Amino acid sequence: MAPIGSLLWRSLRVWQIYGANTEVGKTVLTTILCKSARDRYKNELIAYLKPVSTGPLDEADSHHLDKYAKGVAHATLHQYDLAISPHAAARGKFVPSDKSLLESIYAHAAQTAARSPGWLFIETAGGVHSPGPSGVSQAELYKPLRCPVVLIGDSKLGGISLTISAYESLRLRGYDIEAVLLLRDEQYRNWEYLTEYFKEHHGIPVYSFFPPPQREAESLELDAERMGKYYGAASQAPIIHDVLEHLDSRHKARIARLESMAHSAHGKIWYPFTQQKLLAPSSITAIDSANENFFQTLVPESTSGEPGNEPLLQPSFDGSASWWTQGLGHGNTSLTLAASYAAGRYGHVMFAEAIHEPALALAETLLHGMQNPRLTRVFYSDDGSTGVEVAVKMGLRAARVRYGWSNKENLGIIGLKGGYHGDTIGAMDCAEPSAFNENVEWYEGKGMWFDTPSVKCVKGKYIVEIPEGLRGLLKSSHPEFATLADVFDIEKREKARHHEAYEQYIEKTLHHHLSQGRKFGAVLLEPVVLGAGGMILVDPLFQRALVNVVRRSSHLFGSEGGDAISDEQSWSGLPIIFDEVFTGLYRLGRFSASSFLGIHADISVHAKLLTGGLVPLCTTLASESILRAFESNDKTEALLHGHSYTAHPIGCNVATESLRQMQAMERNGDWDWAKKGGWSKAGANETLSDSKVWSIWHTEFVGWLSNHAAVAGAWALGSVLAIHLNAPGGAGYTSNAAVNLRDMLRCNANETTEAPWNIHSRVLGNVLYMMGGQHTSEEEILELEEVLTKALSTLNL
Amino acid sequence: MAPIGSLLWRSLRVWQIYGANTEVGKTVLTTILCKSARDRYKNELIAYLKPVSTGPLDEADSHHLDKYAKGVAHATLHQYDLAISPHAAARGKFVPSDKSLLESIYAHAAQTAARSPGWLFIETAGGVHSPGPSGVSQAELYKPLRCPVVLIGDSKLGGISLTISAYESLRLRGYDIEAVLLLRDEQYRNWEYLTEYFKEHHGIPVYSFFPPPQREAESLELDAERMGKYYGAASQAPIIHDVLEHLDSRHKARIARLESMAHSAHGKIWYPFTQQKLLAPSSITAIDSANENFFQTLVPESTSGEPGNEPLLQPSFDGSASWWTQGLGHGNTSLTLAASYAAGRYGHVMFAEAIHEPALALAETLLHGMQNPRLTRVFYSDDGSTGVEVAVKMGLRAARVRYGWSNKENLGIIGLKGGYHGDTIGAMDCAEPSAFNENVEWYEGKGMWFDTPSVKCVKGKYIVEIPEGLRGLLKSSHPEFATLADVFDIEKREKARHHEAYEQYIEKTLHHHLSQGRKFGAVLLEPVVLGAGGMILVDPLFQRALVNVVRRSSHLFGSEGGDAISDEQSWSGLPIIFDEVFTGLYRLGRFSASSFLGIHADISVHAKLLTGGLVPLCTTLASESILRAFESNDKTEALLHGHSYTAHPIGCNVATESLRQMQAMERNGDWDWAKKGGWSKAGANETLSDSKVWSIWHTEFVGWLSNHAAVAGAWALGSVLAIHLNAPGGAGYTSNAAVNLRDMLRCNANETTEAPWNIHSRVLGNVLYMMGGQHTSEEEILELEEVLTKALSTLNL
Repeated sequence: MAPIGSLLWRSLRVWQIYGANTEVGKTVLTTILCKSARDRYKNELIAYLKPVSTGPLDEADSHHLDKYAKGVAHATLHQYDLAISPHAAARGKFVPSDKSLLESIYAHAAQTAARSPGWLFIETAGGVHSPGPSGVSQAELYKPLRCPVVLIGDSKLGGISLTISAYESLRLRGYDIEAVLLLRDEQYRNWEYLTEYFKEHHGIPVYSFFPPPQREAESLELDAERMGKYYGAASQAPIIHDVLEHLDSRHKARIARLESMAHSAHGKIWYPFTQQKLLAPSSITAIDSANENFFQTLVPESTSGEPGNEPLLQPSFDGSASWWTQGLGHGNTSLTLAASYAAGRYGHVMFAEAIHEPALALAETLLHGMQNPRLTRVFYSDDGSTGVEVAVKMGLRAARVRYGWSNKENLGIIGLKGGYHGDTIGAMDCAEPSAFNENVEWYEGKGMWFDTPSVKCVKGKYIVEIPEGLRGLLKSSHPEFATLADVFDIEKREKARHHEAYEQYIEKTLHHHLSQGRKFGAVLLEPVVLGAGGMILVDPLFQRALVNVVRRSSHLFGSEGGDAISDEQSWSGLPIIFDEVFTGLYRLGRFSASSFLGIHADISVHAKLLTGGLVPLCTTLASESILRAFESNDKTEALLHGHSYTAHPIGCNVATESLRQMQAMERNGDWDWAKKGGWSKAGANETLSDSKVWSIWHTEFVGWLSNHAAVAGAWALGSVLAIHLNAPGGAGYTSNAAVNLRDMLRCNANETTEAPWNIHSRVLGNVLYMMGGQHTSEEEILELEEVLTKALSTLNL
Repeated sequence: MAPIGSLLWRSLRVWQIYGANTEVGKTVLTTILCKSARDRYKNELIAYLKPVSTGPLDEADSHHLDKYAKGVAHATLHQYDLAISPHAAARGKFVPSDKSLLESIYAHAAQTAARSPGWLFIETAGGVHSPGPSGVSQAELYKPLRCPVVLIGDSKLGGISLTISAYESLRLRGYDIEAVLLLRDEQYRNWEYLTEYFKEHHGIPVYSFFPPPQREAESLELDAERMGKYYGAASQAPIIHDVLEHLDSRHKARIARLESMAHSAHGKIWYPFTQQKLLAPSSITAIDSANENFFQTLVPESTSGEPGNEPLLQPSFDGSASWWTQGLGHGNTSLTLAASYAAGRYGHVMFAEAIHEPALALAETLLHGMQNPRLTRVFYSDDGSTGVEVAVKMGLRAARVRYGWSNKENLGIIGLKGGYHGDTIGAMDCAEPSAFNENVEWYEGKGMWFDTPSVKCVKGKYIVEIPEGLRGLLKSSHPEFATLADVFDIEKREKARHHEAYEQYIEKTLHHHLSQGRKFGAVLLEPVVLGAGGMILVDPLFQRALVNVVRRSSHLFGSEGGDAISDEQSWSGLPIIFDEVFTGLYRLGRFSASSFLGIHADISVHAKLLTGGLVPLCTTLASESILRAFESNDKTEALLHGHSYTAHPIGCNVATESLRQMQAMERNGDWDWAKKGGWSKAGANETLSDSKVWSIWHTEFVGWLSNHAAVAGAWALGSVLAIHLNAPGGAGYTSNAAVNLRDMLRCNANETTEAPWNIHSRVLGNVLYMMGGQHTSEEEILELEEVLTKALSTLNL
């Protein structure tokens, strides 16, 4: 993976020169910048880099610079002799990969920074989207470097349009354009319009320069002399000094802000899920930007070195996938464009009794993707917590109407111990009392929660840990499996009647609670993995047994009224709600996590990955048989729930694009490497097509982890890896067992493991988890596994 | 205002031709399109429109078309004889306003549609951002027309970049680009790259054409002959037929989708706050797009006429400001760019123990803008409901810690009858039982709610309606004021001791509840206006009295422990929470609605307008004295609340830009027209600078409304107008009194009022409300008032 660091040093001001078009005077203006910097900063290094140059060598920009701006250290990384765009010029020649090109730019800049304080101007080729050698647009290609930009405007007819468009293309990729420079064409006078435009709309200064003398073919020497004079005058002009001063101050301001952000935030932000008293400014990470699976984070001051030639930014692997939301990579341009388009076409438009394309398209995509014939309706809200509240309101009402209960009845939900569904009070009330909620004033657990048989790889074997209450019923208190695929082979396990003990236990427990007069209105489960509760991998057989028992037990929960079960799509027993906020939409490798259980939920909640890690949005899917409970001639019997930004077009459009991309990746077999290298290897009898239980983390690595002395157990499924560490003081949210490992991984690039990047991970008590995105490659996973291996080896000492 | 309709007719396929640059062959390719359409659609009208043409008349595009594509109806709206960009060519000449230019394009297209089925190609000038006559970029200017686009790519060196950038500039303004056409340049072969690029990234077909013959100056006749042959061949080529077929099918598909959306939505969407049983597909509005304060909505089928020459879209004023979120106009490009930039730079980045620029900048802007010395902290969440839950958790904990109560204590909040704070259970529990919540299973009102003295203009006078329980204490049960400014002149009213009766009542009521052993943990108020509860304008003196009584009554609520009041910024009595989700951030004309009361809250919640109507985001601001209650060495005593998309950079960046714009508008006096024309007129002794109680709705109009027989009372403040209609069956949420008026306003463009647009408004029981945005002009308000006047006059008959 070798993520690319962004280019930021205290001592070296690095600027990228983009042109609004080809032949706008990019090289001329860069030469003026270099020459003027050379004169002004006498004790510093002035450097120029052309990563990719096309055209004959003696006409190369670097050559030009050598001639007219003496004393500037110049370099070209790749030279192609045809005067056409790099991707065309490179045909049939050596084509560096995007990655290696970025690496060599980084290396060059780092060497320059190490030599002396100074300036480095990096000149691009052609326009902002002119393709680099690989064919990828430069604006896209160079994005991870996050160089501030000097944009060279176009002074010709049409140049106003090109300059603004170029600006917008850069901007939507997160570039900071700090100045626009352009030549003065007295006929079109674009600089006049552009100066006003950029000042008014973007607060960016525009600087204009007299154009160089026309070349006259009859005398090369005379041309050179005139050009020399031109550069001499231009580089002395007050305006270019203004430009350099402005760029210098922007550089300093950027660093000053980055370095003060943690302190400011410490005083002004009230952090979620954080004991502020224990939070020091030094433990707040300043994030400059993010690209693919990496943040660019500020290197802590103490380690960045005095001389100013140490990099200020380092890549940090986003190990929590930004709180489980991230899928298609940070700064994904397709998603940005999906958001931009919806913003431009609609902004937000109110949703009650209205419909717009993004909301309808997303509803269709989700209902189709779920492959669940029960689900026909989509209700929109803003986040997993609100979506669960909607689901619970739906479920309870459906049960109350069918069983003819009054609205004063105390209805509870049925869930699992360790389940968690969000932080609004209604969602909190769905979870058993725990560290998350027991201190919260209005929390009141409303339901009953079953003990949860959970799965871990322990010393190379997959163990189902059976809670105490269940042990008497099962032959073994720790059933063992060779592979996770075996655990998930529900058909085989049901044939062997392994579910019967579970069902017996569930029935017995239900009877017990119901006999005490309790009433339940819905089952609420996170299928397969209980996330916030501590990354508990639940025995799928148990969740399936629970649903099956409930569905055949209508008689237990109440006496059915007129709204009896009319078809196979109707709920029976109790409405089954699956909270797939974390586990759905490919987090575990499949569109819906419910498919691992072979269960069709009546209500299904989706968020997080839904918008591919961009903006909040949640959908609660439901069946007609749930909706019918709200149908009435009385409008107050409707589901009176809604948020102002319900079905906001930006979120819906991003989600549709995100799902489209993930579904295409699945169809195209983009994860075949993981399917091949994962569980199927261990399961001898499986063919690839059968291996639907897979992970991007390697089976061998999980096996290694499970044998580590500090590890109580581990598992990996889809993009998730969970390491349960031994917790001498007791497991759970209040444990600090995983904090040491987390801190080691987060060390400055990476002292513990010697990787040129670090890992920003989150812990849940004694569990350290990590997740990749949909684009994470096997190479990345191997490197992450190596870093983890090294860190754990050190931890063990 | 005269909003512009988008150009959509069933019978007329309207396409806008944009060029990636000037001189890319726009006119040549448009001529081929016209000529080929002429040949292919023999019985139809083929029309060409150049809204703005520059250069000598005999070289004009229209002239060219006349020569080479006979039988095409062509027109030019504005001709300037200099061959430079329109804004420059128009210097010193007649410059049509953007509005009148759009109106004349609309009129031209409508006439064309009325004549015959056919095609209309509208050719722009130069590149996408080439300024129109007024200087505004064409991409921005023509946006409200929402014409689908044929983009002419650039085939020259650098053209790849220009074509992609032009595409992106159009896209982020909500344009649908349906085809890219370009000339084939055999040297650069841009069409090869672009074909692959647009297919892969955007699913858009690229069509390439052989270039026209070079002009040879020696013989104009020969040139013309060659061009004639070229056009003859080009317009017969299979590829141009493919283009026309593609464009025709996209046109039909757009209409088919628009017309089927309501039906599809009716079957797939579960609508918020809607009794689905009473919802017919015909009452679902299909929204094609939105611009400034208007939606473009599908005209209901029955009224669009058989022949297909009636417009399919009409402008509908967004009277609910899209559920109170909209401020700076739909499709506001500054906000789009703010969102795009954050998406490109970060996507979402996790927020626990991290900081990024947009979140910090927004926190700083809010804390500074509030001008409330108590507020020092910003907690982020996703919507008003979650933000209120956070606020309540904060408030209750602070009270519990100070007064030494256990976490089992039943704490309630103190609020007002009619207050409403959101639909998650915790937020619902803050409201008294009402139609919104009494049917919801887990709802349990937790608190006590004071009767609310409210204000309305009735028969030209501002009456404070005093609830029964209070009447004995006041001299008058309906105190009267000449102006709303008088009602809000708290200083004067307190000097006259009008608050004393309120305070007496509040103290007495508190004593009563506390003496019964009840405990309260916070005061939660919507300052000035209770929104969802029915647009109740509360007597500000009462809210102020309530806060003042609570703040001086610590002894009543509990016995203070060690965490006593340490300074003026600390809370006393109970934490005061202001829910400014609806009323804050300029909705009522001021940054904070609390300033109307002269009260500094301890906790303040902000959403809706926060992001200018783009994406969900909420902030809960709090004081250090609230934060301290959560400080501990135990992490489970922290505020354990957080959503995955907490402080998402897109929302934060959009909010910062939105607040910046609104603050600048206030500084620049953009609302002076309203301040001048509003309340100050009526208040004889006020100077403009004193008139801080103002509305964009005219005092005279509110007065007229208040005298209408169907109206119980009305008020206007900031951008909000509320009309309380007489409700024979009783006021409140279940009333249908306002539905008739709403339906009349929503009639097809506008049968009732003869306006060329309609009003999409929402009602709350017997209240019809309407709100403008920050950019709403006095002209718009006058027209809206006229439409309302006509509708109400009809209603009265």
